Amino acid sequence: MNPHLSASDIPAGFTYAATHCGIKRSRLDLGILVSDTPAPTAAVFTTNQIVAAPVIASREHLRKSHGQMRGIIVNSGNANCCTKEDGYPASISMAEKLAAELGNTDPSQVIVCSTGVIGAPLRVEKIIAAVPHIVMVRSAEPGAFEEFARSIMTTDTRPKWAAAKCRVGGKQVRLLGCAKGSGMIEPNMATMLAFIATDAAITAPLLDRALRACVGRTFNSITVDGDTSTNDTVAVLANGHSGAREIRGASGADYQSFLAALEKICKSLALAIIEDGEGAQRTIEIEVRGVASERAARQIAKTIANSPLVKTAFAGADPNWGRILAAAGRSGVKFDSKKVNIWIAGAAVCRHGAEHPFDERAVHEKMLAKYVPIRVDLHAGKASARVWTCDFTIEYIHINSSYRT
Amino acid sequence: MNPHLSASDIPAGFTYAATHCGIKRSRLDLGILVSDTPAPTAAVFTTNQIVAAPVIASREHLRKSHGQMRGIIVNSGNANCCTKEDGYPASISMAEKLAAELGNTDPSQVIVCSTGVIGAPLRVEKIIAAVPHIVMVRSAEPGAFEEFARSIMTTDTRPKWAAAKCRVGGKQVRLLGCAKGSGMIEPNMATMLAFIATDAAITAPLLDRALRACVGRTFNSITVDGDTSTNDTVAVLANGHSGAREIRGASGADYQSFLAALEKICKSLALAIIEDGEGAQRTIEIEVRGVASERAARQIAKTIANSPLVKTAFAGADPNWGRILAAAGRSGVKFDSKKVNIWIAGAAVCRHGAEHPFDERAVHEKMLAKYVPIRVDLHAGKASARVWTCDFTIEYIHINSSYRT
Repeated sequence: MNPHLSASDIPAGFTYAATHCGIKRSRLDLGILVSDTPAPTAAVFTTNQIVAAPVIASREHLRKSHGQMRGIIVNSGNANCCTKEDGYPASISMAEKLAAELGNTDPSQVIVCSTGVIGAPLRVEKIIAAVPHIVMVRSAEPGAFEEFARSIMTTDTRPKWAAAKCRVGGKQVRLLGCAKGSGMIEPNMATMLAFIATDAAITAPLLDRALRACVGRTFNSITVDGDTSTNDTVAVLANGHSGAREIRGASGADYQSFLAALEKICKSLALAIIEDGEGAQRTIEIEVRGVASERAARQIAKTIANSPLVKTAFAGADPNWGRILAAAGRSGVKFDSKKVNIWIAGAAVCRHGAEHPFDERAVHEKMLAKYVPIRVDLHAGKASARVWTCDFTIEYIHINSSYRT
Repeated sequence: MNPHLSASDIPAGFTYAATHCGIKRSRLDLGILVSDTPAPTAAVFTTNQIVAAPVIASREHLRKSHGQMRGIIVNSGNANCCTKEDGYPASISMAEKLAAELGNTDPSQVIVCSTGVIGAPLRVEKIIAAVPHIVMVRSAEPGAFEEFARSIMTTDTRPKWAAAKCRVGGKQVRLLGCAKGSGMIEPNMATMLAFIATDAAITAPLLDRALRACVGRTFNSITVDGDTSTNDTVAVLANGHSGAREIRGASGADYQSFLAALEKICKSLALAIIEDGEGAQRTIEIEVRGVASERAARQIAKTIANSPLVKTAFAGADPNWGRILAAAGRSGVKFDSKKVNIWIAGAAVCRHGAEHPFDERAVHEKMLAKYVPIRVDLHAGKASARVWTCDFTIEYIHINSSYRT
């Protein structure tokens, strides 16, 4: 659940606004997040090579402005992806309009995001017309941030935000983030977006390093259905308005403190996406340990997490360890099946690659919880990885097989 | 649907039998396929590294007997996989018993297969006790073959067989095969088994070459849920009893004629498995062309075929080409999205990576058929690949999330 936000959670020097501009029928569909001054910014984007126009535009802008960004403009209801030659200019014009209304801002200092249907033309004129209004009404109130978090939703059932604080040189630094993703009542809405504002002072390259470190263990460790979206974006803006000293070097205590806070936000938002996964009844944590490398451990964990047989077994709270072992076996990572132990919801169910006697009813009951851990130990190394997914329910099929029109 | 079998479809020199030995509650669960004389045999097995005991035993036997096999013994209802130290001796004892009852046969001339639940001990004594009876009653009647095809079923809704003929040096050669796979009312029943008998005369190495050529384009080109079983086996026995001359060399007309007949059988059986896929309403053919290599084309086609979003869209007969393109984009194969054209059920729906105007209602109606083709052209090479899958329905979730006990 989202924490209650108070004024003390809001990083200094940021404002937010949202409105309904007409891309969606009636709900909020346009939002902005603005830093009072150019903020060192780090961002990571989809790895799908089918890349939406706003992702192309945002990557260029980050390069051009050397990661010094004023803000983010994001519309929901249309992904502006596979929209021919009209897509890219539409994204650029969104940045230009926000920059012009803010003043003293180059269009390259704006990140542009879109989420929604793929392949339908974006009626960007509706967005352009609404920008002056949202720039005017933007504010630093918690309510404005919450509206912004709502405006990026597509088929999410609820907005998702998280706040964290850390101390840098005795001063408090705040981080505040929101994310969307995983509801899918309309099709092609797989986009995962997350935006984090912080008043920490940190250089863009160091912020980039921190973000990449966090993303691997959080956003890149979740999966609903293995289908990577064309618009995924995670961006963090650090405007330095906290007054805390600048975080320098990745080895010091300042960086570690900030990194921990950033990872806390990223993990909260990533898990909120899984909880709100399409048709999900429960979150499954898959920890794979005893592997030669973290990369191999993650590959096994991801294969288990994306197995329809594992995910449907969890929908039925069935401690079906054979499906977990079989999925690991086809992951592409070599291991000795005779050394594998598996635990479900804390109960040992498989030992040395064969059934370990357990109370099926008791484990079944435990698996009815909202959060169920799986642990797989290969006894073949010291690395481990953790991945989160949700169960695969009839509701998922309902959501995704309903005809679009 | 299965063709009606007459005596003229049965290859010379083979017999079949099946019985209920008590592994399953009441249905046929034990079958044998026997050649009158040792037959050059080729077989391919699962690529999952979690390998069931019968697969290990069969691989050894093929090596030991230089591919000269007398027959196959197969039980359903239990996969004899992850069954600790008892699994392998159980498989061996099945081969030993069949060899002893046949007489003049080494145990290494027997292929052993099991399909069913993973992790439960196999009560092999029930199988051993039933072998003398089935060896006694085996026959070359079409009805005996059909019973054999039934005895290998687990949660299949129907038996699956196919027959083919070809001419070698003016003489008729017959091929007859059966397969099981893809129903999943009980869990862990993913095993795909296929057995083909032929009275062609051909050496084991050449037969192996023919089988591998066919399997890539047929059995290895189907997917229900991407979960590779631990027991998959395809075996073909060629006993030479047709009286046709021996097929020599892969370049001649004899080999081409035989290869075409073998591929026809393999394709029929593979498509029958997809038609009987868990909860499937329709078969989807995915053809990817214009790619640099067949391997890359297959990788893209498989990624599309395993995408839950594509498969659920087809459950709703939704011409949602954006999901197809997005799945191709995350396949790991690089291509230029601006060159991609997509057809669904014969209608052009995407051109140059963007929407191509089409009559949604008309395409939706066409997608309600039992067999729906998708074609994706990347315009980046001359290779192509075809893969078959089924749609992802609510029934799939019902089948696989029901508690085992």
